[in-house]
Amino acid sequence: MLPKDVQIVSVDDHVIEHPNVWQDRLPAKFKEAGPNLIRDAVNGDYWRFEGEKAGNFALNAVAGRAKEDIAMDPRSYDDMRDGCHDIEERIKDMDIEGVHAQLNFPNMPGFAGTTFAVAKDKELALACVEAYNDFIIDEWCAPYPDRQIPLMIMPWWDVDLMVKEIHRTADKGAKSFTFVELPHKLGLPSWHTDHWNPMLQAAQDRDMPISIHFGSGGAPLGVSNEGMSTNFVVGISLFALNSAMATAELLCSPVFHNYPGAKFILSEGGIGWVPYMLERLDYVWDRHRWYNDINREVPPSSLWKTNMYAPFIYDDAGIFSRHLIGVENIMFESDYPHSDSNWPHTRKMLEESLANVPDDEARLIAEGNARRVYNFPRTS
Amino acid sequence: MLPKDVQIVSVDDHVIEHPNVWQDRLPAKFKEAGPNLIRDAVNGDYWRFEGEKAGNFALNAVAGRAKEDIAMDPRSYDDMRDGCHDIEERIKDMDIEGVHAQLNFPNMPGFAGTTFAVAKDKELALACVEAYNDFIIDEWCAPYPDRQIPLMIMPWWDVDLMVKEIHRTADKGAKSFTFVELPHKLGLPSWHTDHWNPMLQAAQDRDMPISIHFGSGGAPLGVSNEGMSTNFVVGISLFALNSAMATAELLCSPVFHNYPGAKFILSEGGIGWVPYMLERLDYVWDRHRWYNDINREVPPSSLWKTNMYAPFIYDDAGIFSRHLIGVENIMFESDYPHSDSNWPHTRKMLEESLANVPDDEARLIAEGNARRVYNFPRTS
Repeated sequence: MLPKDVQIVSVDDHVIEHPNVWQDRLPAKFKEAGPNLIRDAVNGDYWRFEGEKAGNFALNAVAGRAKEDIAMDPRSYDDMRDGCHDIEERIKDMDIEGVHAQLNFPNMPGFAGTTFAVAKDKELALACVEAYNDFIIDEWCAPYPDRQIPLMIMPWWDVDLMVKEIHRTADKGAKSFTFVELPHKLGLPSWHTDHWNPMLQAAQDRDMPISIHFGSGGAPLGVSNEGMSTNFVVGISLFALNSAMATAELLCSPVFHNYPGAKFILSEGGIGWVPYMLERLDYVWDRHRWYNDINREVPPSSLWKTNMYAPFIYDDAGIFSRHLIGVENIMFESDYPHSDSNWPHTRKMLEESLANVPDDEARLIAEGNARRVYNFPRTS
Repeated sequence: MLPKDVQIVSVDDHVIEHPNVWQDRLPAKFKEAGPNLIRDAVNGDYWRFEGEKAGNFALNAVAGRAKEDIAMDPRSYDDMRDGCHDIEERIKDMDIEGVHAQLNFPNMPGFAGTTFAVAKDKELALACVEAYNDFIIDEWCAPYPDRQIPLMIMPWWDVDLMVKEIHRTADKGAKSFTFVELPHKLGLPSWHTDHWNPMLQAAQDRDMPISIHFGSGGAPLGVSNEGMSTNFVVGISLFALNSAMATAELLCSPVFHNYPGAKFILSEGGIGWVPYMLERLDYVWDRHRWYNDINREVPPSSLWKTNMYAPFIYDDAGIFSRHLIGVENIMFESDYPHSDSNWPHTRKMLEESLANVPDDEARLIAEGNARRVYNFPRTS
C-alpha cells in the first residue's frame, strides 16, 4: 500500500515553454533567429527557429481531456491547461493529482534539446541552451524549490561545452541533465567509445544523474516507419524498445566500469520488460563475451542494479516482477500533460498499482528512490 | 515439474542444408545459377547463388562447443556436428538432448527464405523454394514423421504463388510455413493492408500456423547499426525487440479480426517481455484508438490469447510471469545448433526452468501447446 504520508516524486513530466522563454533571455542579436512563437489563427501556433518552423509546439499536451478528444497536438495555448506553461498553475495541478515534486523535460527543443544541437548557428544554439536552463532554474523551479527538480539540457555537439554547462548549472542548483538515449543512432560516437568521458566525469563529480527520455536518440522506433506502419497505437506502444536498446548499449559498454558513479534514468519506457532484458543480457554475455569487446568479469545485469533506473506510469507486469528489476531501481512518473498521464487521478492510480506492495517498497518506488538518486531530500 | 513422460517438442531449431539439397532437385537449366556449395580450403565453404556469394553458409552452427570457442560462423562442414545437416545424426543428437520432436528453420536462404524472394530470376527462385520444401518433406522429415515437423518457405514475392505453394505443400503433409516478421520493413505491404489476405485465407483454410523467426523481417535490430554499436552481445540480446514490434503490428492490424483462425508463432524472441507489451498495447489502445485506424471494440491483448504464441529457450522472468502471458501461449525451443542452444543439456535445463511450475502447466509448455497449434499429435 502507498502510505498516506508519502510525497510522490514524479521523474518525468513536461514543461510547455511559454512564448517568452527565449525572448526574455537571449541577447538582442539572437532574438530574431532564436525561438519565436508564431500565433497563427488558421494553422495553429508554432515555433520559428533560425527562420524555419521548428521543434514541437506542444506535443501531446492533452492532460484532462476525455480520451475521445486525445490527438497528437493541441493547436494553441488556448487548447491546453495553463499548468502546461505556468508554474503557479502547474503547482495547483500537481496538488490536484497528488504529486509533491516533479522533474520536467523540455518540449520545444525536444526531450534532449536536439533542435539546438543540430542548429546551424552554434553560438545561437549555446545561447538558447543557456536561456532554457536559466528559465528552468530561475523562473520555473526557484519559487518552489521543494516541488520542482531542475533538469538541464546540454550543448552536446561539443563535449567541452557540455562539461562547462554541467558545472555552470550545477553551481546554480541543477540536479540532472538530459541526453540522447542512443547517440550512435544520431551519428554521434557510441557509449563504447571514450568520446563522452569528460561528460561522464563531470556528471560523476557533480553527482548529477543523467535523465534519458524515450525518443531522444535518433528516430524513435515508435514514431518512424521502423516501428510503425499505419497508426500511432503501434508506435506509442513501442516506446520501451528504445529504452531496452539504450539499456543494452550502456550495460555492455565501458561506461559504468570507468565511471561507477554515473547514473542513468530511462523515462517513459516502462519497467515490465526489464527482468527479461537483464536475464537475456547475462545469458548472451555468458556465451559471447569471449570474442567481443566487452568486460569479461562483470555480468551486465549487476551494473543495472548500481547504475540504472526506470520509472513507470502504470505497469502491473513490472510491479509484479519488481524484485527481478530491483525495488531500489524503480521510480514513478506522471507524464503530465501528455496522453500517457492519468492526471487528475495520478495518486489514485498509483495507489491501485501499489495496492499489493509492502509499505516500505511502496515508499521507495513512489518517493525514496527519486529523492536518493536525484539528491532531492525531503524538506517537510 | 516436468513429468518424465513428457515428449519435448521444440518449435525452433535449424537445418544446415547439405551441399546437394538443390543440386539433387533443380531442373538441369537451373543447376548452375541455383545454390552451389563452394568448398574453399582457404576462406572456408560458402554458397554461391545466381553467380554471387549468397546466404549463410552455416550461421552460428556451434552446438556442443565450449563457450570460449563460440563465434558467428563455422568455416566448413568439418567444423560442425553432423547432426546439423544429416537427419540420422540429428535424431541421435535429439535423443542425447532429450527432445522428441522439432521444427527446423532454413539456413542458406535465411529464416524466411528471403534470399530466394529477392533473387533476380523469379522462375529460378520458385524452383529453389519448391526444392527446399520437397527436401524438408521427402528427405528430412519423411523417415521420422513423429520427430520432425515440416516447416515450409514461401515465394512471398507473389501472393498467388504463395497460396499455390501453401496448398501444394499442405497436400504433402506440411504443418507450417515461415514468413517475414515485419513485411513493411522490407518495403512490402504491411499487415494493415489487405495485400496478404489470400495468404491468410489459405493458412486459415489449411490450419497452418505461421512461424516467424526473429531476424526475418528487414534489418534485424540486433545485427545492424540500428541496434548495436560495437559488439554482438548487444545485438543478440535484442532479438526480442523485433518480436515485440511484430506483436504490436499484428495485434493492432485487421489480421485476426478478418482471419480468426490465423495463428503466428514468434521464434527466438523469448517470452519475458510479453506481459509488459500486452499491458502497454491495451493502455495505449484505450487512449489512442479514437483517432487511429484500429478496431475500437477489441483490446489488442485479447487477440494474443487466441492467435499468437511464443517459445522460449531459457527465460526465468517469463516463466515467473507465465499467467500474464497465458500458459497456453508458451512453447519451448531448443535452437539447435545455434549458440543460444543448451545442447546437450536441453532437457535438464528445461527441467530447471519448470522446477516450480505445476505439472499440468509444464506439460502444455513443453509439449501440449506445440502439438495443438502445429496439429502434430502424439503417436506413441
